[in-house]
Amino acid sequence: MNNFPSSVRINEEGPREGFQIEPALIPTSAKIELIDALSETGLKQIQVVSFVNPKRVPGMADADQVVAGFKPKEGVRYTSLWLNEQGFLRAAASKRLSLTGRIVLSASEAFLNRNQNSSSQKNIDDHRAMMPVYAAHGVAVEHGGLQSAFGCNFQGEIPVETVLKAAADVFSIAEEFSQKLKTFVLADTMAWATPETVKRVVGAIRNRYPDIDVILHLHDTRGMAIANAYAGLQMGVRQYDAAIAGLGGCPFAQHKGASGNVCTEDLVFMCEELGIDTAIDLEALIEAANMAERVVGHPVPGSVMKGGSLKKYRAARLGQRAS
Amino acid sequence: MNNFPSSVRINEEGPREGFQIEPALIPTSAKIELIDALSETGLKQIQVVSFVNPKRVPGMADADQVVAGFKPKEGVRYTSLWLNEQGFLRAAASKRLSLTGRIVLSASEAFLNRNQNSSSQKNIDDHRAMMPVYAAHGVAVEHGGLQSAFGCNFQGEIPVETVLKAAADVFSIAEEFSQKLKTFVLADTMAWATPETVKRVVGAIRNRYPDIDVILHLHDTRGMAIANAYAGLQMGVRQYDAAIAGLGGCPFAQHKGASGNVCTEDLVFMCEELGIDTAIDLEALIEAANMAERVVGHPVPGSVMKGGSLKKYRAARLGQRAS
Repeated sequence: MNNFPSSVRINEEGPREGFQIEPALIPTSAKIELIDALSETGLKQIQVVSFVNPKRVPGMADADQVVAGFKPKEGVRYTSLWLNEQGFLRAAASKRLSLTGRIVLSASEAFLNRNQNSSSQKNIDDHRAMMPVYAAHGVAVEHGGLQSAFGCNFQGEIPVETVLKAAADVFSIAEEFSQKLKTFVLADTMAWATPETVKRVVGAIRNRYPDIDVILHLHDTRGMAIANAYAGLQMGVRQYDAAIAGLGGCPFAQHKGASGNVCTEDLVFMCEELGIDTAIDLEALIEAANMAERVVGHPVPGSVMKGGSLKKYRAARLGQRAS
Repeated sequence: MNNFPSSVRINEEGPREGFQIEPALIPTSAKIELIDALSETGLKQIQVVSFVNPKRVPGMADADQVVAGFKPKEGVRYTSLWLNEQGFLRAAASKRLSLTGRIVLSASEAFLNRNQNSSSQKNIDDHRAMMPVYAAHGVAVEHGGLQSAFGCNFQGEIPVETVLKAAADVFSIAEEFSQKLKTFVLADTMAWATPETVKRVVGAIRNRYPDIDVILHLHDTRGMAIANAYAGLQMGVRQYDAAIAGLGGCPFAQHKGASGNVCTEDLVFMCEELGIDTAIDLEALIEAANMAERVVGHPVPGSVMKGGSLKKYRAARLGQRAS
């Protein structure tokens, strides 16, 4: 049984997910060029940088210059990632980015222990401490979510009950500070998800929080991302994070095979072929994907950018019929 | 609604699909080494070569030597592809291959016109002409199917009615020669399928021919193969062609982005994670995929071979619990 949405929103995260993991430093101008190209595709949200410690993520050392350099397109939200107050203040100082406060915890305690030298309680405390900072800047906290929502290299399977418990922590921080979450991201940080776990976890979250808009953030490390996105579509999920050309990966997952998010143009292709509107120009997206491949200078995972869309074949057929 | 099968059979076609398209000639010994490795993974069917004109497919010029050289494993069917009597006679002469007569037509007339300088009628006649040849060799004709069953670069969308009409031609040839088809392959030759067209076409074929065992042959040119396989699983389809490491592609599709079949180890990973038995050792398959990558000497599409299975993480967790 399908419960396809009539349209989806795709949040492009290639510039952030992609460039933060690239071993070679990408010229700032090339990053800006790609962001500007993505702005012309119909994408409504583009995450352009993360404001993180350049010692840990050298690829993001030029985040301020990237943000200062791109050409904002009307109707597009440009977002950024931050992990602490310092990062948020850099984002706020730029004056060019959309700011939404967020509470994203981890469904896996072991992931926090092993990768962030943290704990669930410390993570909660850190997020609570950010709430007055957001308030001081007039930034509403509307985005919640969970990392490692489908499994974890350090903790193994994550039972739905564990996901719901961590989700309750997220919602309770929001409530404590009188904030109402609108979106809730379920991130498959270490690529454990299958279509069935996507359905199970999405279903459980929506049963508990019927008003929330679920976002799926799907990594393709084990080749399941597009099938997992399809499962999300079957469940009616309307928002997906994605990365142009399949760029990216999580530099902190200690995962040598870490690969990018679900590939934007492959996801757009699937949605459009299923009759689900993306409002994105697939051909422009394919050009941007080819640009992304040139920018990173190595083969990228995307398929439709190599195989091509079906547009030219359909156009040829229409031409034949008309003649 | 899922109608997952309890188990699936995966027909490995990497050696045939993969090596026929490689621009560099692969040493015969390397092909044999890969086939022997695949034999140890639990795969029950491996298509090892195609007997085709070496002028058209130079990568298959050593087909006879490959067939003479591999080490047959008990319980594994070794198969081959042929396109005409000459090819079949080479397969039959080898005495080392399982032979099943087949009637595989094309749902797209334009594909036959443009790629094989043929037509639907000529294709039917050619297959009819093969029937006495099979009979003379005591080979039962049990396998039918259709190329381009989900769309075609030259013909565009293929309506279900067109698929059913072409399928009727297949079954009527079998009936004419008193043969009973057991399996029916639906091939997404030019990668037009989506999960929804897979469901539609599989459903239509099974409604019309309830006793037939459908096989899906899914190309990954546009990144949809694993989602399409998932759709097949949802429909209860129990047999899939696949290619180790995602090797392959159709050299006749005039399709520069032609990429391989659904990747065997990614498909096995998905099935096993969904609780569907494959009887295949995923770790052995990953080793074979790495061998395949070395053999072809360039990056291959497979994901699980790079990202790894989940076995070691689960084993570590069990160790923690035990201690």
